[in-house]
Formats: sequence, structure tokens, C-alpha cells
Amino acid sequence: MPLTAAEFNDYRLFAERLAEAAAEAISPYFRAPLAVDDKGGRLFDPVTVADKAAERAMRELILSEYPTHGILGEEEEAVAGQSPLTWVLDPIDGTRAFITGLPLWGTLIALNDGTRPVVGVMNQPYTRERFVGTPEGAWLNGTPLKTRACETLSTARLMCTSPQIFDTPARLAAFERVANQAQLVRFGGDCYAYCMLASGFVDVIIEASLQPYDVQALIPIIEGAGGIMTSWDGGDAQHGGAVVACGDKALHAQVLALLNEA
Amino acid sequence: MPLTAAEFNDYRLFAERLAEAAAEAISPYFRAPLAVDDKGGRLFDPVTVADKAAERAMRELILSEYPTHGILGEEEEAVAGQSPLTWVLDPIDGTRAFITGLPLWGTLIALNDGTRPVVGVMNQPYTRERFVGTPEGAWLNGTPLKTRACETLSTARLMCTSPQIFDTPARLAAFERVANQAQLVRFGGDCYAYCMLASGFVDVIIEASLQPYDVQALIPIIEGAGGIMTSWDGGDAQHGGAVVACGDKALHAQVLALLNEA
Repeated sequence: MPLTAAEFNDYRLFAERLAEAAAEAISPYFRAPLAVDDKGGRLFDPVTVADKAAERAMRELILSEYPTHGILGEEEEAVAGQSPLTWVLDPIDGTRAFITGLPLWGTLIALNDGTRPVVGVMNQPYTRERFVGTPEGAWLNGTPLKTRACETLSTARLMCTSPQIFDTPARLAAFERVANQAQLVRFGGDCYAYCMLASGFVDVIIEASLQPYDVQALIPIIEGAGGIMTSWDGGDAQHGGAVVACGDKALHAQVLALLNEA
Repeated sequence: MPLTAAEFNDYRLFAERLAEAAAEAISPYFRAPLAVDDKGGRLFDPVTVADKAAERAMRELILSEYPTHGILGEEEEAVAGQSPLTWVLDPIDGTRAFITGLPLWGTLIALNDGTRPVVGVMNQPYTRERFVGTPEGAWLNGTPLKTRACETLSTARLMCTSPQIFDTPARLAAFERVANQAQLVRFGGDCYAYCMLASGFVDVIIEASLQPYDVQALIPIIEGAGGIMTSWDGGDAQHGGAVVACGDKALHAQVLALLNEA
């Protein structure tokens, strides 16, 4: 059963309340001396008390307001809901940016209706920027966003958080096939880069090794602004893994072809 | 003849006036549709009307207030002064960040006394952050900055604007020798990364292919916060080229040794 317009509006406002609760939990720790733990894995994977406190604050709000909804978050176990609706949370996307003092991290909040993310919020409290996406559109602090037209890779601005994100040599080589033809390649950016794509200043983002909570909030923002986000094989991006986002659909087709060459 | 304390204070305040004039010229163009020209060279080297307008505004202020001073800026010809004092200007350091919407660019302003940069300002108008350095110290919006202790590379956070910045395979290999031993490597950052090093959140920055106006404003900020910035061979960083900045002097010695190995 699709959500009604009134439900949609309630959930969008609630997602923004979650963003505020997370911001309150995180802000005392940004640019403060902070113990940083390594979650382990292939690369140094930092986590801090700020990540944990923000996810806790959001989970408590969800449990009290919508106890039948599911929760999928980066820092705690998944909660299966009795409803098809699930909140998908990344309290600090870009913990590396966070611990190095750069204002490019964000709190990611998505509402998944059981088939796809239908509300997405990226909140950056230091710059006071809140990006929101729904099937109706995308906004930065209430101002509508639109991706820009950019049909050819030779005029495209490409972003990627780090070349280290590619988990196999074949994936790195595929990324480089695209990067070598782009006008500009810029590393660093995390969720902020996707929001700049939605805003029309970046044309393509190629990443890999992502989790569902890294991407679900960004899909409604990018699609609401007129862009497209898929997996490298053109499938659904919501499960994470290797993803491509483009502001222009013609460019997306060209990038997929290059990624899947050979 | 060394500057008096009163002269120093006047010049620091004047540098901040230059920062404000540049911010006024640039701000209408940030995140606005903007023609981007390529200055040419090995990599796409963007320049916009915002860069040019900001440098013009600063030059006009200098010519009217201190007509005997020299000017070295990115966008116009150098002006030789009758005084040993020279203003060294980069209206938008990080034009790639600027055109992709990221708030990591900054206006760089240094006063060189004929031997070295003695006042440095990095101004980021979107986040409203102004970093200032003098031989007396370094400040962010008036709050003193201090680099952090970090004696060993295995606990160090390394930043670099882009792996593409290294102009020879030997330089890239030298960078990678250091990067492979660092706890965390983050690309992207431009002048903002140096200010995060001065603030104690980044431990080492390694770059190459820099111009004098890319580095002179950052030296007083980093040194004023307790850090060190040199060329890769341990010499004076003010001429640009290949530079290393560290928050901790023990780490700096270790990084230089690794860069110059083989």
C-alpha cells in the first residue's frame, strides 16, 4: 500500500527531527580531541563516541514514535519491524572527514518503504546545510535542487571519496578508464559529493565497497534533483556495493559502458 | 629593518581587509552557474571570473593603501615594489573545490618582509572561517590554534590534494612510501587541509607542483600553531614546489627521511 501524502509529509518531518537529534549528539565532538577506534577490516575504519551517541539518539526517537518500524543502522544491530517501513541510518557518513576536521561528513537518514528509499536526508550541522529528497523533488534548506546537463565525459567533473575504496584491481582499472576521460577528477567528498551532484556542480560519482546505509538517503536526493544512481551493472543501488551516480542520464549510459568494458 | 609591533598589527589588520574585499568579490559566484576557463598545462587548470575579480579587488586596495609595496598574485603580472614588503595573493586556492561546490577553497594572503612570509591569512567565506598566522601565533576567528603531538607515522593522518599533483613517477613513489605507513590517507583539501593541520586534526601534508602564492600564507599559520613546513629536502618552503608540513617536528624528520630514501 503506497504511502498517503499526509504520511509522507509526517515521515519527512520526522526524518528532519532525527537529523536534529543526531546533530545535537555529534556537535560537541566535532573538532574536539576525541578517542578514535578502528572497526577493523581492509582499511583503517574509524569510529568514535560521536557516531555511537548519534545513532542511539535517533534509535530512541524511532522506538518511541514509530515502534513498529524497522531500523538498519551502521553502529548497532538491525531491528526487524512489524511494518514494511525501515529507517536506514548512518550517523556520521565520512568519519575520516569528521576526525580530520573537514565539514564534508553528514548524517544520513532514509525511510525505506519495503521496496526502495522514499525519503532521504543528508544533514551537515557545521555548515548548517540540510539536503532532503523525496519522489516530489530535492531541496537544500528548502531551495529546490537540480542536476546539470552534461552529456559527455570530456566535460564532466568526476568525484570519488578515495582511490582506496576500490576493493579489486579490476574495479580500480574500470574507475581509471572513466577518470582518464573526465575533465576533472576530485577525491574526498563522502556524502557531500553526492549532494553537490544533486546541486549541479558535480557530474559523476563512482564508488565501491558501500553499505546500504551509505547510499539509501542519497538516492531520493539525487533522483529528486533529476539525476540517476545505480549499481555498476545498471541495477538497483539501494543495496550498496559498487555504485554510479550521474546528474545527466546520457552521461550515465556512457559511464556504465566504460565501467563494464573488457 | 624588522617590522615594529605597531606596523605588524597594521599589516595584519590590512590583510584581513583584503580577505573581506576578496570575499565580497567571490561570494556571488560560489555555487552559481559560472564559465570555467582552462589555463592550460599538464592538468585541467580551471580559472573563473571570481578568481580574477577577487585578485583585482585586493590589488586595488594595496595600490591605494601601500603603493610602494610589491604584489605577487596568481592572476596578474607581478608588481615590483620600492619597499622590501610584498603581498602574495591567491584569490581562490582550490578552484577545483570552488567549481564543484565544496567549501574547502580559500583566499590566501601573505605579507613577505623580503626574507620570508610574516603574516598569513586563509579566509573561507562560506563557512565563515578566517585563519590568521604571525610569528606570535595562529588563530581561527580569534581562537588560538595548536598542532597536535604525533611522533610516529603509524598514528598519523596524512592529507594531499590529489595523487595527480606529483609531477614525476619518482615523486609519486616517494609519496606512496609515506602513505603506506600512515594510519589514514585523505585526498582533497587544498589550503583547508593545512589549516586543519594547524588546528591539530591532521598530522602531515605532502604535496608538489606548488607556486609561492599557494604556500606563503600557510607558513605563518602552520608555524604560528607550532608546526613546521619545508621543501622535501628540508629547505625553505616559501618558493613552493614540493613541500611537507607537519604538526610535530619529530614526525617531520621521519617523513623527510622516507621521502628522500633510495
